[in-house]
Amino acid sequence: MDLAQMIRDVPDFPVKGILFKDITTLIKDPAAFREAVDRMAAPYEGMEIDLVAAIESRGFIFGAPLAYKLGAGFVPVRKPNKLPAETISASYTLEYGTNTLEMHKDAIRPGQRVLLVDDLLATGGSAKAAATLIEQLGGKVVGVAFLIDLTFLHGVEKLKGYDVFSVIQF
Amino acid sequence: MDLAQMIRDVPDFPVKGILFKDITTLIKDPAAFREAVDRMAAPYEGMEIDLVAAIESRGFIFGAPLAYKLGAGFVPVRKPNKLPAETISASYTLEYGTNTLEMHKDAIRPGQRVLLVDDLLATGGSAKAAATLIEQLGGKVVGVAFLIDLTFLHGVEKLKGYDVFSVIQF
Repeated sequence: MDLAQMIRDVPDFPVKGILFKDITTLIKDPAAFREAVDRMAAPYEGMEIDLVAAIESRGFIFGAPLAYKLGAGFVPVRKPNKLPAETISASYTLEYGTNTLEMHKDAIRPGQRVLLVDDLLATGGSAKAAATLIEQLGGKVVGVAFLIDLTFLHGVEKLKGYDVFSVIQF
Repeated sequence: MDLAQMIRDVPDFPVKGILFKDITTLIKDPAAFREAVDRMAAPYEGMEIDLVAAIESRGFIFGAPLAYKLGAGFVPVRKPNKLPAETISASYTLEYGTNTLEMHKDAIRPGQRVLLVDDLLATGGSAKAAATLIEQLGGKVVGVAFLIDLTFLHGVEKLKGYDVFSVIQF
């Protein structure tokens, strides 16, 4: 199945000049959603993933079924003030300002093998921040998996040193 | 497995006086996460679910693996201005003001059988709004599934006429 063709381009979202890759047209199709999850999981079968950490909130749509399929636990990486217990946080810069991500302090036990998941790799800032948080908690980032890599933004370079995988490249 | 025991109580979150049910302690445990998803899915096996619609963003953590497991597509129900294409919206009242949920206009084809999913049933306002949106798009709400029902808030009454299921009751 050509998953790339099932993604809709929406011009000028969320701001003028951005051509947004809308995954909702793909994930509402049962066969396409299944294939997307299966292809994201494939490199990690048998790799003893303890936890899948996914970035709020589109990352949850792929990270949660990956955790289920791989027999792992699920850890949310969230925007500020969403997690109720004690957190650690990391900030990263965007074109326009900064964003912050948080994880619970008790989300990971030292030595656990963690797969980091998000829907889309752009400049890599959020994934890099999340990977840093996982490592601060003592986790090992076994891989970083995306459905989509916007290769012209060179996010892979920001994630140098990590094993990065994507199903679709634009 | 006693899933209820794996949920953490966090006092005074998000506001003073609320005892928050923190599911992160459950979902980070692989066996508990698997059992939670399996028990949420069980009533709907063989019921020909076309789509699982889940409410942002904790609802995605259960709705996405349910869609995967049931062979359904996944439809996000989101907070305002998060969905990129044309939307319809519904508002509901909280103790302190109102919230709004949105769905894409093309999320559902008339006649599709939809399972609505969220992590927790409190007063039922958000689930009721989401069910209304699904029906506006021509979908049939086959069931409404929660991990947790805070029964003392009587959310089931607000969802009268729907088939409501929860795995854990407090």
